Amino acid sequence: MSALNTDLYELTMAAGYFAARKAADIATFELSVRRLPAARNFLLAAGLEQAVEYLLNLRFTSDEIDYLRSLAQFKDAPPGFFDFLAKLRFTGDLFALPEGTPVFANEPIAIIRAPIVEAQLVETYLLSTFVFQTMIASKAARCALAGDGRPIVEFGSRRAHSPAAGILAGRAAFIGGCSGTSNTEAGMRFGIPVFGTAAHSWTMAFRDEEQSFRALQSLLGESSVFLIDTYDTLEGARLAARLGKPIWGVRLDSGDLVELSKQVRRILDEAGLQHAKIFATSDLDEYRVAELIRAGAPFDAFGVGTQLATSGDAPSLSAVYKLVELKDGAGEIFTAKFSDDKSTLPGAKQIYRYADHDVVALYSECNSDFQGEPLLRPVLIQGQRVEPPVAIDKVKTYAAESIAALPARLRSLEEAEPYPVEVSPRLLAIAQDLRREFQPAR
Amino acid sequence: MSALNTDLYELTMAAGYFAARKAADIATFELSVRRLPAARNFLLAAGLEQAVEYLLNLRFTSDEIDYLRSLAQFKDAPPGFFDFLAKLRFTGDLFALPEGTPVFANEPIAIIRAPIVEAQLVETYLLSTFVFQTMIASKAARCALAGDGRPIVEFGSRRAHSPAAGILAGRAAFIGGCSGTSNTEAGMRFGIPVFGTAAHSWTMAFRDEEQSFRALQSLLGESSVFLIDTYDTLEGARLAARLGKPIWGVRLDSGDLVELSKQVRRILDEAGLQHAKIFATSDLDEYRVAELIRAGAPFDAFGVGTQLATSGDAPSLSAVYKLVELKDGAGEIFTAKFSDDKSTLPGAKQIYRYADHDVVALYSECNSDFQGEPLLRPVLIQGQRVEPPVAIDKVKTYAAESIAALPARLRSLEEAEPYPVEVSPRLLAIAQDLRREFQPAR
Repeated sequence: MSALNTDLYELTMAAGYFAARKAADIATFELSVRRLPAARNFLLAAGLEQAVEYLLNLRFTSDEIDYLRSLAQFKDAPPGFFDFLAKLRFTGDLFALPEGTPVFANEPIAIIRAPIVEAQLVETYLLSTFVFQTMIASKAARCALAGDGRPIVEFGSRRAHSPAAGILAGRAAFIGGCSGTSNTEAGMRFGIPVFGTAAHSWTMAFRDEEQSFRALQSLLGESSVFLIDTYDTLEGARLAARLGKPIWGVRLDSGDLVELSKQVRRILDEAGLQHAKIFATSDLDEYRVAELIRAGAPFDAFGVGTQLATSGDAPSLSAVYKLVELKDGAGEIFTAKFSDDKSTLPGAKQIYRYADHDVVALYSECNSDFQGEPLLRPVLIQGQRVEPPVAIDKVKTYAAESIAALPARLRSLEEAEPYPVEVSPRLLAIAQDLRREFQPAR
Repeated sequence: MSALNTDLYELTMAAGYFAARKAADIATFELSVRRLPAARNFLLAAGLEQAVEYLLNLRFTSDEIDYLRSLAQFKDAPPGFFDFLAKLRFTGDLFALPEGTPVFANEPIAIIRAPIVEAQLVETYLLSTFVFQTMIASKAARCALAGDGRPIVEFGSRRAHSPAAGILAGRAAFIGGCSGTSNTEAGMRFGIPVFGTAAHSWTMAFRDEEQSFRALQSLLGESSVFLIDTYDTLEGARLAARLGKPIWGVRLDSGDLVELSKQVRRILDEAGLQHAKIFATSDLDEYRVAELIRAGAPFDAFGVGTQLATSGDAPSLSAVYKLVELKDGAGEIFTAKFSDDKSTLPGAKQIYRYADHDVVALYSECNSDFQGEPLLRPVLIQGQRVEPPVAIDKVKTYAAESIAALPARLRSLEEAEPYPVEVSPRLLAIAQDLRREFQPAR
């Protein structure tokens, strides 16, 4: 977590603002997602805790400053700039959606108000932090909806985009509705339940399936999950049935999961192991989980890996971080960008949630003018945390309740009629005025 | 980089191997990709340096061991297991493709031979390390091919799967053929050129485009890149033309890039700025870059962000880590998995590269029996590095030369006739024997 982990242009702009004596201008930036990806009816905000940790610890080391000094881009950096950087801390405000809040296109997930150098510098890190976890939590919510009450475990660390991403994927998946993760470090760091028993290599390393199952059983007892498809799935099931209790269940990781699961269920039942569970893995995603359940495959739980930890069908979000207000020597203004295909709405905003729609208004509009629940909350004020972190179990519960409170159609895996997000009349008027001001010819 | 950043089952298996007195068995695992993603004609191996760093530093802290002790899964862990874990280091061998080597389906990218607990434990971290960078380097190679000599800069940190992934994406993209990255920490850590000048917020923060361009020009001089689409692209181009030198060029980030770039070129040329360059960003990928060039858009360089840093069209690889050899108390055997849809070839392997095909053979076969170049090299022997790291510039050059040496059809962005990968007669015979042994009924 280095202050240098940012796009270089944040730093050249910092030097430029400093040179232009604008470093103390107060900028308000808004972090939002332009469009929901295909088939997503909502996103689930996540990543706030890591964003806060980053902002609270923002600083440059002397090695990092030496590195910057060595770059051609800073050969004409203004005098005093590097000393300024060495002392830089985050002293601004952060408003954000609580983690686990459903959020829609163009609604702010977070708002940063700070001296412009600070607010600009943190853009890159905040985007990747909020957006990655939001993306994974959203995908996990879909998997949980598909599971329809059956536990889903996040198993994707090995396919995550770097080992560090795997840890955060485990966290975000838990928030989104998974029962836990296979990532042990995520378990320790975030207090998330961790799951896992054995791989095919375990069975192969014993040279003999029976020996390998017995060894597992003596270690894990009632937590034993036998992976039965290393050689022949039905033979593996018969072996598990013969070994009997203690057993949690068996895992299937290949082949025709519908057909095999039914036969395996029969084998276990006939051996008196009605309580032994069947766990499915094998390139699953929310669609495949729903399909297996629809086909009557008697699975009790699912492990979802690659597709969850990479949000495989939507591996990026169209997230942006846009300047919406500016306070400089000349006063306070709203700002927006009006290029043809990438326009933004000006002003720091609040989201008010009603039963069946949201209204986005200016943050400065009066809460009591709206019946809906205001969603964005102050998290940091002048660089200081104003509320303690929320326990991750509570975040998960809040997410589940919030998803349950959405109109039912949004809980479909298929694209539904979009949730309406209205813009308050005052915000709309300001946007129109601003557009006229900048584009008089249109 | 914690030893705990692994799937829990690696740790339960470790306990089980320890209990079964198999901890000193020597296991050989192979890391490979089952299938090339759609439209990929080759992958470019990357990530080795981070894998080595991880293996050389593998150890559990006492906090981590306390955490494991607290888990239900370890309540019956064998006596001595946690002391064993506390002392655990990586003492094995690593053979790998040099970074920047083109690699094909089912060819080993890396081979680990170590006491089974060590070899098993590192699976998760090694997979995500090798696979993420391999995926990004491969995507970057496609972007570079599309650019056809024009520089491509990696700009995707903000959309990467976590801030840490952004740093590694910058590294892998450079190896794959990019000229540099916007990620400043990647620049410092890996010695990669960094690029970036200013965002739309810069222009907006000055309230006036001309002032903002002048401020940039006085800071960056001949490196100045004016982002001209904040309000009106052609007006922005005229302003840049009026300001004149010093200038590197202008950047377009929205709108009809073909049409706009031609008009902008004319505006710059008419102002005598024939040497000023035009830089394109705006949701690019290798296809869009190729299309812009084909349409005669006069762009001199491209910034590719989201699609590159996430490998958007192929955000995961079907990578596996499979036990291929085992040496235990009873002797030395080849191992393989024969489930219907996920079979593997046994034995530690070497890849021999010829002009127009590869041959995969057993590592133990004699090099001199093959004319092709052996590609896998020893990197760690008994936990010690046997060769110093390769400078990243050399890795990049080696990658470019290796790609240039492939049959021409593989350098297409479209799927070409696959590169032939043959299996040596001896390896094939062993695989067939093993299959018969385990599946006599078929």
